[in-house]
Amino acid sequence: MKISELSRRSGVSIPTIKYYLRDGLLPPGRATAANQADYGEEHLRRLRLVRTLVGVRRLPVGAVKEILGAITEQDGDLHQIFGIVTDARPVTQQQKQARERERQEAGEETGGVTDARELVAAMGWEVHSGTAALRSLGEVLDALSDMDSGIDWRSLLPYARLADRISELDVQQMNGVSGVLELAERAVLVSVLLEPALLAMRRLAQEDKSARLFGGGPEEEGEEE
Amino acid sequence: MKISELSRRSGVSIPTIKYYLRDGLLPPGRATAANQADYGEEHLRRLRLVRTLVGVRRLPVGAVKEILGAITEQDGDLHQIFGIVTDARPVTQQQKQARERERQEAGEETGGVTDARELVAAMGWEVHSGTAALRSLGEVLDALSDMDSGIDWRSLLPYARLADRISELDVQQMNGVSGVLELAERAVLVSVLLEPALLAMRRLAQEDKSARLFGGGPEEEGEEE
Repeated sequence: MKISELSRRSGVSIPTIKYYLRDGLLPPGRATAANQADYGEEHLRRLRLVRTLVGVRRLPVGAVKEILGAITEQDGDLHQIFGIVTDARPVTQQQKQARERERQEAGEETGGVTDARELVAAMGWEVHSGTAALRSLGEVLDALSDMDSGIDWRSLLPYARLADRISELDVQQMNGVSGVLELAERAVLVSVLLEPALLAMRRLAQEDKSARLFGGGPEEEGEEE
Repeated sequence: MKISELSRRSGVSIPTIKYYLRDGLLPPGRATAANQADYGEEHLRRLRLVRTLVGVRRLPVGAVKEILGAITEQDGDLHQIFGIVTDARPVTQQQKQARERERQEAGEETGGVTDARELVAAMGWEVHSGTAALRSLGEVLDALSDMDSGIDWRSLLPYARLADRISELDVQQMNGVSGVLELAERAVLVSVLLEPALLAMRRLAQEDKSARLFGGGPEEEGEEE
């Protein structure tokens, strides 16, 4: 297909496609004339993934390039692909070891991270030790403890069980998707784009529950406050 | 209590407390000497809420002041308090009407917001029409549609049902908390501080599910990649 069709089918503008071509995010098309090239389905798939990583994951072009490289090395291993596209950015084994050393030299981990490991163990989740989500959860647990909130990792277990059910829905979204690039695109959509949707639905449900439990029933529009 | 004890019990530094006093976020204490004042439990409760709104909701001091004013006007109406502390900032009825007019003048709402309303109706959630979460959900639905993801509001219903169960846990966290300021503080902790915890737990559970389904079982530490 011509670049104009590639643009139409991917929803990416021609100038942006040209920029990706110059930058090596897309391999060149097959030259058909002095200033024309032919692009295939593989270009389209790659372009859709790039668009998703840039637009949804909000990654800079350099990081997208690294990720594309890492994905194509995985030989279709969906577990690795899932991890690469959802984590901040791909890291080599050496970088990981260096980071781990830094963390160890920086001293003991916080009580929150230790508690996060307790929760993970109680849920029977098998995750690798350096997962970023473990540190995020640890930070929240540290904050809850600093605030004497009375909420600890045990209080979060009912939430963890619902998070577990959400993750089951997430992996089901991969059914019927084939091809490394399509799988990677779907993994980004499901993991990252659904985050604000989940939080928004929780907020909507909270409003409903809070009105039923604490308010005088649902409010009429325009009469709130 | 003296300002030093107020600082110790609230975890807020003395200079910060003095800044809040000057700024009117905290009412003055009862003067006991030329340069000394006595503070009560009410100061402590208010200070804890301010700390949570600034630290967790990351609100500027001006907005916190508005919120404190709005909360004390609610006369203990927990549904209103929940809405005030979880929404971006309190708005007066006039501001709300002005915003609604702006939206109407700006034209029809996006297809995503219409779909978000369908989802809310299908779930039987009673929410008011201008809720910010409805627009957030609409934006995600628009993005999913722009990307030809094949994921629409109906595909999100299983997620919505889990979000509903999460919100039931959320309102349960209010049990046993009394006093307007304590309720407001708890509502911020539960609604806002638990967001990153929920997303982190979902990510941990995803890693577990993805390893079980797609990978060759859980990885040994240090051997990933």
